[in-house]
Order: sequence, then C-alpha cells, then structure tokens
Amino acid sequence: MEIKIGQEKLAKALNHVSKVAAGSRATLPILNNVLIRVDENKVSLTTTNLDMAVVSYLPAAGCKNGVVTVPARLMAEFVSNLPRGEMVEMMAEGEKVTIRAGEYTSSINGALADDFPELPEIEEDKAVKFTLGVDEFKDGLAQVMVAVSNDTTRPALTGVYFNTFEGGLYLAATDGYRLAERKVLGKTEAEVVAIVPASSLRTVMGLLGDEATEIEVLFDESQVRFRLGEVEVTSKLISGSFPDYRQLIPKETEIKTELPRDELTRVTKLAALFAKEVGGSVVCEASVETGAFAISSVANELGENKSEIKTEVNADGKVTLNSRFLLDTLNVLGGKVVSFGFSNKLDPVVLRSDATADYVHIIMPLKS
Amino acid sequence: MEIKIGQEKLAKALNHVSKVAAGSRATLPILNNVLIRVDENKVSLTTTNLDMAVVSYLPAAGCKNGVVTVPARLMAEFVSNLPRGEMVEMMAEGEKVTIRAGEYTSSINGALADDFPELPEIEEDKAVKFTLGVDEFKDGLAQVMVAVSNDTTRPALTGVYFNTFEGGLYLAATDGYRLAERKVLGKTEAEVVAIVPASSLRTVMGLLGDEATEIEVLFDESQVRFRLGEVEVTSKLISGSFPDYRQLIPKETEIKTELPRDELTRVTKLAALFAKEVGGSVVCEASVETGAFAISSVANELGENKSEIKTEVNADGKVTLNSRFLLDTLNVLGGKVVSFGFSNKLDPVVLRSDATADYVHIIMPLKS
Repeated sequence: MEIKIGQEKLAKALNHVSKVAAGSRATLPILNNVLIRVDENKVSLTTTNLDMAVVSYLPAAGCKNGVVTVPARLMAEFVSNLPRGEMVEMMAEGEKVTIRAGEYTSSINGALADDFPELPEIEEDKAVKFTLGVDEFKDGLAQVMVAVSNDTTRPALTGVYFNTFEGGLYLAATDGYRLAERKVLGKTEAEVVAIVPASSLRTVMGLLGDEATEIEVLFDESQVRFRLGEVEVTSKLISGSFPDYRQLIPKETEIKTELPRDELTRVTKLAALFAKEVGGSVVCEASVETGAFAISSVANELGENKSEIKTEVNADGKVTLNSRFLLDTLNVLGGKVVSFGFSNKLDPVVLRSDATADYVHIIMPLKS
Repeated sequence: MEIKIGQEKLAKALNHVSKVAAGSRATLPILNNVLIRVDENKVSLTTTNLDMAVVSYLPAAGCKNGVVTVPARLMAEFVSNLPRGEMVEMMAEGEKVTIRAGEYTSSINGALADDFPELPEIEEDKAVKFTLGVDEFKDGLAQVMVAVSNDTTRPALTGVYFNTFEGGLYLAATDGYRLAERKVLGKTEAEVVAIVPASSLRTVMGLLGDEATEIEVLFDESQVRFRLGEVEVTSKLISGSFPDYRQLIPKETEIKTELPRDELTRVTKLAALFAKEVGGSVVCEASVETGAFAISSVANELGENKSEIKTEVNADGKVTLNSRFLLDTLNVLGGKVVSFGFSNKLDPVVLRSDATADYVHIIMPLKS
C-alpha cells in the first residue's frame, strides 16, 4: 500500500474518524485502529466501535492498492502536528507503516486488516431515504438531544425517535421528565419509525460543522446511515418501542404568557443559584394583578430569591419546575420570545419559541 | 450595613476575591464566605483560606457602616448574573443580607463577622518593597512556575524563590528535575530571600490580567503582600531553605545550537506522541556531519519517530530528555530562536531564548 496526500486533507479525514476509535478502553485492541484502504486511487479511512462505523473518503493520486490498520489517535495526532501543506507519504509493508513528510520520518506499528471487524452494510437502493438541510438538522438535533435519557435500563429513551407523521419527518426525545419534538422536514413521501442512539448522533453532530449543506439519512430495518459530503456514519438502531408521545403534548394550556428569552434565562439562573440545596426546584408564578411572571427559589439554608418579569398574563397560576430543565430548554430554544404555557400544578409546562413553530418542549412539574 | 454600588464594579471585585473562598471543601464553613465591610463609604471585600487572604477595595457613596459575611461564590455568581449597569443595593440586618437590583430581590443567609478569622497584617513601613511592571512580572512568573514541584514532602520546592543577587531581583523554581530562573528587576537596593507558595502566586496571576500596570510586592519576615490596583493578596511564606541553585546552572556547554522555537516545538510534539509508552523520553542528537539537530523517540510498541532540523552544530552529542519538560519550557520560553546547549549525557541541558537574556531553564537528562 502506498499513499501520497496533502497534510490538511489527511489530517481532517483522520480527525473525523479517530473520535470513534475506542482509545485505550477497547476490549478488542483493533478497535483503537483506523482501517486505511486504497483502491484505484480512492482512499478510505474507517473506524468502528461495533455499534457504529465512520468512513471518510479521500481522493488521491499515485497510490498503490492495499489495506492496513494503525492506531487511530496516534495517527491523527501525528498528521495534525505535521507542517501544513506538506505532502504526506505513507507506505505499508506487512504491519509496519512508514510515514514521511519533509524532514519527518515515522514508523508506526499497525495491525493486519484481517482482524478488523466486519462493517455494517446498508442496501442503499432498498433503504428509506431523506435529504435534509444541514443547518436545520443541526439545530433540530440539538433541540431534542437535550431531552434524551442516559438511563441505560430503558434503552428506547437513550436515543432520538425519528418518525414520519402526516407527511413530515419529526425527531423526538424524552427522559420521562421532559420531552422535546422538532419537525425537520415538512413534506416527504417516505415513512420511517426508528430510534437512533444518542451516542451515534453525537458523532454525527461533531461532523456537521463542515462545508456540506445537505445530509442524507438512510434507514433499513436495523441500521441508519448519515452521509455528509465525503463522510458516512453508519449506526445500529435501538430496538424497542418509543412511547406514544404525541398524546402527552397538551393542545392547549389555561395560563399563557410570552417572555423575553434572555430575561427569562437570567431570572432562572438567579433562582437556580439559590435552589442548589433543594434539587434545583424553582417556583414559576403568573399573576394577573401584578401583571408579572415571577420565578422564585424555595427558602432554604442559602437564602431565597425572587425576580419578576412584567408581562401580559391571562390567568393566575403557579408551577414548580427543575431549574436545570428550564435552563436546558432556554439554551436550545432559539428566538427572542418564549411562550410559556401551563395549566395547573400537575400538568406539563409547554415551551415554544417565536423562532419556529416546528419545535415544542414540555417539562413535567415537580411536586410542591 | 448598607451599600449602593454599580453591578459591574461589584461583580468584578467579587470575582477577584471569591476564588480564594474555599467552596464546600472548607473545614471551617466561614471560609466559604466573603467578609463585606463598610467604613466611611469605603467598601472592602475579603476572603481567606488561612494561608492567604485577598482584599478588594471599592469606592462607594451613600453607604452605612457595618460588617457581615455571606457565601462568596453564591454572592459572586448572583451579582454577575444581574443586568449590567444596574445599581445593586445591599442591606444587612444581623446575619440576613437583602440584595435588590431593579426587579430582583434576594435574601442571602450570611454569618456574623465575629467568626471570620483574623487577617494577616504586614507593617508596611518596615517591609521590604519592590515595584515591578505587571507585564514583565506576569511573564517571569509563568516562566518559573512551570518548574515548581508539587511534592509536598519538600515544601521549599513547592514555592517560587524570590531572591536578590548583585542588585537584581530574581525568581527561581525547581522540582529537582528542572530549574527555571528569571530576573524581574535589574536594579534594586532592597534585599530579600523568601519562598512564596505557588498556590498564592496562582491567585496573583489570576489578577494580573487587569488594568493595573504596576505591582507592589512587600515582604516581612514571614509574609508577602502583592498590591495590584485596588486588590491586595497577602500570603504566608514557606519556611525552609531553597537549594543553592546558582551553582547548578552551567556557565558553558560543550555543544551549542540555535533552533527555531516553533520547529523545535513541533518535532518534540511528534516525538512525544511515540514516547508515551516509555515515560515520554526522547533522544536529542546534534550531528556536525549532517548539520542537523534530530529528535527521536525510542522504538517501542507504538513505533518510532525521527525528525531533523537543519542547523549549525559545533560538536556531536546526544542527550535523553523528558519530552514533557522540554515542551513545558518551549511553551513559556518566548521569542523565536531557542539556544539549546548540552555537554554530555549526564550534564544538564541549558535552554535560553532570543527574547530575553534574563531567563534560563535547565533540564536534567534521563538515563539512556
């Protein structure tokens, strides 16, 4: 195997794939490695952690076919430290890989590709396919990921639920205490119901900063593939069924108010400071008489705190929330104005933003 | 006690002092608190961890005398989250402190000032005093702090040695494996020999970003005070004697070479990647024949690495170093060109920079 390739391109591709390589934690040492394959001047770099695989394709010239594996992070760090613009030459003889760039020579001890695990394959012509704008997908994903559970005893909640409904593609996530849903595609003929692991989606999110403007998402029965420019992430789906969440989103709430997002964020932060000793719980209160929405912390050892935002309120009401959940939501909500709706102490709080009608976030109240 | 003060000034002063407050780790709970004292419209905020104290002075108008203590970090976070430019009003009644700013009201449970520890005092007119430029002191401190030991069984090495010598003020630090010395003042009549704890100096460094251009350093027998604008840090000194380090710095080395700092940093990083499994040790080699300075890692499980820098070399030689120590030095050395001098496998390596003749760093070789 022989490769000649510019340092910047190679460094970027290695950076994309090396994060999935398991590091020293791997039970199977070969999972630390990146599989480098050259086939007719097409170079591919692949890593996998058995649940998912990332492949980055690179065009190159003057290469010789072959395949080898080398420690992914060492290789990525090495190439990223070489001078920019230098041509990097790589030659493999058996397990030994020699790398040259200008005055730099290294020889890395790799491993034969035979031991590298089989990679998941998707039959693309039979797969269900969606094409999404990168910016919208990125925002939408961030907006739902915040509600994903990390309780591995309920695997279905540790992923994002991709589902089509009335011709739209929706992402949803819930940890049982809050629920977020975002429509990411308005019109589609394709149909899907699938739970994608949050860990795989974090890898995808890490790749979304790049130049590509579209992302393809392909599903078969048990796998999903995200294709973004020259990079592909293929992941197992989570089996199991996602809660029938749509019925949990209140159509209407009795008390409604609109609040500036930055102001609401500020007062929630202030109340949260005082709520540390009471598990973060804060009391939200709307009052017609004072024409204000107030957030206060429950009095405790630290002291207490109350802040008001003057606003139009249609009815009186009070609800206790986990301030961290509220801050998480405000953080991803976008827009300038938050619509904050609730009914009584026990019904969920519904949060929406003026930035888009396609996002809804609900938070279950705490007992007070 | 009553205070009226602008949010930005108060937030900044609280930020300065709150880092020293011990957080929840304190054995003495009052050490979590900031002492707020008002005396004739002068406000002072004080925190201490018993080894050191920080005081920040604030001018204010319309205040009422008094003194109280409140949890420092809660107070700092609270005030920094209030809207900019708002006037903050603070009133203490017994242990209860009420804070108002616009629509915000909080009441913080404080503690009586009686329990606050005595603060270290320096008799300033009897103290030895130095006035230093902030930029030079900041650079110099960073350049020696890198060599401070964190081995608490040898307390004298966990501090920076301030010492006057032939009319100059020097900072020095060593952990037994490397030694750094920086002259920070060229001409002074005052004389001092004192070891200042690195932990106190880290607090001082955190304050050095600010607008003040001069820093006063005052020593008495057992304490040091750093005065920077409206902030004072007073710390205990470390008792014990610092090694007679000047004799350890070689006057001359047999082999000398000058290297571009960025290039040397790069090749050291590359070699270090491969040296992880051998404790970071890399071999530096100067060769008259090839006209090059080479750094290589010792072959091990990962592979091996060799990089050359073309340069003038006056003699052949080889020395083994800990790559982390070398990178630490290159990181604080400054300038564009590094002078790298060594004699044989066992003698210390001497590093200097073209940026200043006032800094020298020596590293003991590893056995090879």
